[in-house]
Amino acid sequence: MRISIVNPNSTRSMTDTIALAARQAAARGTEILAYQNDAGPVSIEGHVDGALAVPGLLHALAIAERDGADAHIIACFDDTGLDAARSILQGPVIGIGEAAARMATLVARRFSVVTTLSVSVSILEDNLIRAGLSSLCASVRASELPVLALEADPEAANIRISEEIARAIDEDGAEAIVLGCAGMAEFAASLSERHGVPVIEGVSAAVKLMEGAAALGLKTSKRGGYAVPGRKHQGFAYPEGMIVHSGEAADTEPAE
Amino acid sequence: MRISIVNPNSTRSMTDTIALAARQAAARGTEILAYQNDAGPVSIEGHVDGALAVPGLLHALAIAERDGADAHIIACFDDTGLDAARSILQGPVIGIGEAAARMATLVARRFSVVTTLSVSVSILEDNLIRAGLSSLCASVRASELPVLALEADPEAANIRISEEIARAIDEDGAEAIVLGCAGMAEFAASLSERHGVPVIEGVSAAVKLMEGAAALGLKTSKRGGYAVPGRKHQGFAYPEGMIVHSGEAADTEPAE
Amino acid sequence: MRISIVNPNSTRSMTDTIALAARQAAARGTEILAYQNDAGPVSIEGHVDGALAVPGLLHALAIAERDGADAHIIACFDDTGLDAARSILQGPVIGIGEAAARMATLVARRFSVVTTLSVSVSILEDNLIRAGLSSLCASVRASELPVLALEADPEAANIRISEEIARAIDEDGAEAIVLGCAGMAEFAASLSERHGVPVIEGVSAAVKLMEGAAALGLKTSKRGGYAVPGRKHQGFAYPEGMIVHSGEAADTEPAE
Amino acid sequence: MRISIVNPNSTRSMTDTIALAARQAAARGTEILAYQNDAGPVSIEGHVDGALAVPGLLHALAIAERDGADAHIIACFDDTGLDAARSILQGPVIGIGEAAARMATLVARRFSVVTTLSVSVSILEDNLIRAGLSSLCASVRASELPVLALEADPEAANIRISEEIARAIDEDGAEAIVLGCAGMAEFAASLSERHGVPVIEGVSAAVKLMEGAAALGLKTSKRGGYAVPGRKHQGFAYPEGMIVHSGEAADTEPAE
Amino acid sequence: MRISIVNPNSTRSMTDTIALAARQAAARGTEILAYQNDAGPVSIEGHVDGALAVPGLLHALAIAERDGADAHIIACFDDTGLDAARSILQGPVIGIGEAAARMATLVARRFSVVTTLSVSVSILEDNLIRAGLSSLCASVRASELPVLALEADPEAANIRISEEIARAIDEDGAEAIVLGCAGMAEFAASLSERHGVPVIEGVSAAVKLMEGAAALGLKTSKRGGYAVPGRKHQGFAYPEGMIVHSGEAADTEPAE
Amino acid sequence: MRISIVNPNSTRSMTDTIALAARQAAARGTEILAYQNDAGPVSIEGHVDGALAVPGLLHALAIAERDGADAHIIACFDDTGLDAARSILQGPVIGIGEAAARMATLVARRFSVVTTLSVSVSILEDNLIRAGLSSLCASVRASELPVLALEADPEAANIRISEEIARAIDEDGAEAIVLGCAGMAEFAASLSERHGVPVIEGVSAAVKLMEGAAALGLKTSKRGGYAVPGRKHQGFAYPEGMIVHSGEAADTEPAE
Repeated sequence: MRISIVNPNSTRSMTDTIALAARQAAARGTEILAYQNDAGPVSIEGHVDGALAVPGLLHALAIAERDGADAHIIACFDDTGLDAARSILQGPVIGIGEAAARMATLVARRFSVVTTLSVSVSILEDNLIRAGLSSLCASVRASELPVLALEADPEAANIRISEEIARAIDEDGAEAIVLGCAGMAEFAASLSERHGVPVIEGVSAAVKLMEGAAALGLKTSKRGGYAVPGRKHQGFAYPEGMIVHSGEAADTEPAE
Repeated sequence: MRISIVNPNSTRSMTDTIALAARQAAARGTEILAYQNDAGPVSIEGHVDGALAVPGLLHALAIAERDGADAHIIACFDDTGLDAARSILQGPVIGIGEAAARMATLVARRFSVVTTLSVSVSILEDNLIRAGLSSLCASVRASELPVLALEADPEAANIRISEEIARAIDEDGAEAIVLGCAGMAEFAASLSERHGVPVIEGVSAAVKLMEGAAALGLKTSKRGGYAVPGRKHQGFAYPEGMIVHSGEAADTEPAE
Repeated sequence: MRISIVNPNSTRSMTDTIALAARQAAARGTEILAYQNDAGPVSIEGHVDGALAVPGLLHALAIAERDGADAHIIACFDDTGLDAARSILQGPVIGIGEAAARMATLVARRFSVVTTLSVSVSILEDNLIRAGLSSLCASVRASELPVLALEADPEAANIRISEEIARAIDEDGAEAIVLGCAGMAEFAASLSERHGVPVIEGVSAAVKLMEGAAALGLKTSKRGGYAVPGRKHQGFAYPEGMIVHSGEAADTEPAE
Repeated sequence: MRISIVNPNSTRSMTDTIALAARQAAARGTEILAYQNDAGPVSIEGHVDGALAVPGLLHALAIAERDGADAHIIACFDDTGLDAARSILQGPVIGIGEAAARMATLVARRFSVVTTLSVSVSILEDNLIRAGLSSLCASVRASELPVLALEADPEAANIRISEEIARAIDEDGAEAIVLGCAGMAEFAASLSERHGVPVIEGVSAAVKLMEGAAALGLKTSKRGGYAVPGRKHQGFAYPEGMIVHSGEAADTEPAE
Repeated sequence: MRISIVNPNSTRSMTDTIALAARQAAARGTEILAYQNDAGPVSIEGHVDGALAVPGLLHALAIAERDGADAHIIACFDDTGLDAARSILQGPVIGIGEAAARMATLVARRFSVVTTLSVSVSILEDNLIRAGLSSLCASVRASELPVLALEADPEAANIRISEEIARAIDEDGAEAIVLGCAGMAEFAASLSERHGVPVIEGVSAAVKLMEGAAALGLKTSKRGGYAVPGRKHQGFAYPEGMIVHSGEAADTEPAE
Repeated sequence: MRISIVNPNSTRSMTDTIALAARQAAARGTEILAYQNDAGPVSIEGHVDGALAVPGLLHALAIAERDGADAHIIACFDDTGLDAARSILQGPVIGIGEAAARMATLVARRFSVVTTLSVSVSILEDNLIRAGLSSLCASVRASELPVLALEADPEAANIRISEEIARAIDEDGAEAIVLGCAGMAEFAASLSERHGVPVIEGVSAAVKLMEGAAALGLKTSKRGGYAVPGRKHQGFAYPEGMIVHSGEAADTEPAE
């Protein structure tokens, strides 16, 4: 089985971290195809970064499906471009934000999300509403750590996140914690032990959900919202169309 | 990895069907431990059957965890006893109803459930509300086929279910179908092909979700709603306690 | 008119307290039939206690209806087994949790519940959602008093509950208080006077609601969710069936 | 115990019918004080009728409380003026719309309302949302019978209402029916027998709920939304104030 | 274009302030017709004031339409009588509460309301629910300033409101502020500058929305909830009818 | 006052139609700046078209603000890129979908949307949920007319839309109609007359709302979700950044 994971931003070290996390989570027999959106911003913080990342992200996903991927992961906690991705791809697709939240519902009645900047809070809240998960979410808390600060000083980041987790448990009644950024993945195990609740990060959660969906042979439904109007498919195939629209996204190769 | 699956009713042929479906869905390396609740009713249709099945079901699940199961599946589409099961077990637990619905959300914007009798409709609707899934559910439709009729005349059952699927797609806007009974599992693939939408049955969905959760090392949170009050744990361990309360559930051995 | 009230747990002193409270609340001409579920746990705290109590509770309710009860009360604030009870009984049934909350809506725009342990909070929140009452509930607060501590040291319990009521009024905007445990009934009047808001306990609220429903000649609807599938009724009457399933619940006689 | 019931419209025959229905529902020992709002419109159909009826209605309720009423009923299915009434009165108050709906939730999982004109549908839907009852309501259906037509040709009205009940059960999944107008009260018993589901009318439901609330000694909470600002109470008592504001409502005496 | 604005209370200084604010907000070519409800209370605080103000308010609005107003504004933040006004008028109508909240949604994801007394909080919350705006409202906060105190000591009022705005931003995550009383209008600009978020007052918001709706030629829909039953229109025209019912409201002339 | 309107697709005739509609709706003194996203798809039908249109759309909006626009309109009924646009712009921004729906709430209790293809239905439903408008929306109906067919055969399109409006009124209880595509604007007046309910199209609604917001001097809040992280603003100004990211969007000039 092949699962693609696309980093919608252009920061190589994050792509490598994400690919590593995905490969560590993958079952034997699962090949992880990792892609980087070189046309994307250096990190995705807020609506604008997200919007600008999508064309290159879709391009990368289209390449991934052509490369034989059975299922797909968008490695951004904002689930950037998820609906559009589901519209162009045959295989199932998930974002790491929705993946982590859905996994949390399997082991707790109410979870909290601890994310990076407050600019992302309403994006995540809107995503949770859209996904039918808001009634199970106790709170979305911002640590006010920029994405790239997680790499720059992991120890300080870990402390800051741990403080916010403590508040989520004590003040909001969280029974599990979802780490709201791909860059926080490595902290999950130690934070879970320290706080005595499940702490879930999205890359590994997404790998397991996509392995499951692909193993069942599921494809994204093409009825309703994820259909692409037929007229355009004739003489205007979307993968190529996308290249035309976002030619600068060309360097979107599997990050080996 | 070991995953337990418990049939909360006492009908052997259903237990065998469920166990077979689970084993077919399981990844290499996953051992399925199947249990039958001999103290349960012959099928679970409505609130009373469900309530009477729970003590024996919990007993079986406690045995399953003692037998080394890493995660657990309740093989009833009503998710009978799910909250109580999560309270006594360390590993993650899911019911096949919640599993199928969560899997459907990965490949479609709105799904419909086609279940057996109308007595189950409000149970399923309540479960979907509780799980935060009701906004993604287009409809819950009853085929008015009793559970055991699925076994007695599968061909007629298949036709009846197919009619209801057509209505869900045409009238309710369903983009995927969830089959609302463990006994419908074998129809999934052919119905999906006929109707051109994903058709998801719960046993295989639950196996993949529990494989995923167990692979991530997740345990059910013991903070909040799934905690068991400490006082009772002292001098009154629940697994034994359950035996005292529901001794007639004794014949709950792994099936085969 | 006869109204049954069943204590789903096996603690005699609680049964006596409940029966007394019901009789004090009853109108002249109302006979209270009180039952105790000897097969139940000593108290109901959390999902497991609730699940284990239900078969014996249903048995007791079936006996109560045979004894001529026109309406029925489940004397547990979790409304344990309410849906199943409504499925087997002809007369109307209510749990003391739903009763107290519905009564509160008659005299205040928003109420808070003060209950025993935090393990019950999500159960009560789920019940309120299911009953359509969550938008009128300002908060569910745990006093962290175990059920049996209410009897052991009533004065300390009263102080603890009073503190939590003050917080519900000041911090959550509660306009009325619902006492979330049958054991708190005796404190209602004095707490109401101290805090200047209605303080409602469930046993008396349930008695008045069931007196009203029974006086109107109402029966539980047998269409939809509270129907019992017909096939099983033939050759497998539920009251007897229940005895077979939970024979150890036999000592369920009217208390006194 | 004394319970007041106020007909917010000025049609004598309806006041008499309502008073009779209330007295038939009342327990021995309950005295029904019936009032008519002579300043109101001849019937209440839509927002304007409702708004114009309120000052006289409040005046009548203030007189009722001075006359010793322990609890109060607004005999209009739109629950006209309910919030304002709760603000000026000490005793509990209910409208017959909310009363019927709350009673329906005691005997069915989902109910439908069959009312008079479609102009009332959105009023009733808004009331149900406000009262937290909308998730339990399968539908609000208009029979397109004007209020006064119920009196003019009861037989034809009965047939029309019965047709709408059949649709609510078959098409909307109603498990109980709420009759959405005080004038439909007399049809309840026969319609319930014909359709095999509980059929609830609001006057009797309100009498039983108010008897219950008054027997418990409950008063409307004066914290929050039902408080009247203190400044105005000094030197400007509301009952008198109301007379000043709506002097034409003077002929509001207990109806016989 | 002519837009009417009606002060539902009888305090002349407030009517003048409101009329001035409306005229300042009006575009060139918009004539503001200002009315005062001399039959109303001196200020509207809570349900009773609101209910008593409505007949005179409706009367004033009917006069306004006869005077040629193309659209109408109810100058009370509680949106008193809005549904009834929409039922009697041809032109579009808005209350300043709904107007301010709708305008806030154009410039922020979540807004808070800062109002006068806590007695108004649940009224405003109910209005927001009814208008579909509650999910966008972070909080409704009471400053505990009576309406008339705003005029008596504007400086102290400004400080009190500013404190509450700071809390709404810091504790509730408000991104914009809605001033919950017509009397606060003059503070909007300076508060917006001080707090760095949009601060919206309802009179000017309502003027712009009604100018827009009137310019589009929109009329209030007479299908459904805002229809007035036909039978009454024959031989019982509402504007006259209203005069009969609330004759003391006669002195409702355009202010100035 | 200057208001920009951006056609996110690259079809010149639609840009011209939109610009004309906007200019017809504009008040004297309002200058409409119209832009076309030459980098966009020929029409926006579904998630993929929308996602690919956003970078060029944002670029055009940034140019518009530099050109002195006080407020902005996204001329796509899907409100494509609305959140990102609000993040980069100082002035208020609205999409024509949200504009039409908000305007509808001023003149009707419940509205229906009649849109082009069913692929847009779930996009519009999600937008309505996000905007807090779903409880006021009776239905979203697809006419199955592709966007460009509206231009190709307007008469046939008009008939098809009229049929769907009739169904929305009769079957769904719509009291007003929102036309779900910029290309339907010209039909609004005649359809309103034929069906006797307000029929609202988004371009003119958006012009009036933005004129109103701009006249009040409102700016989009930069607290919370619409903030752009500060770090990136230093040395990486967004308007230029966007050009770098989507250079092919260069031909985005005011459409004369």
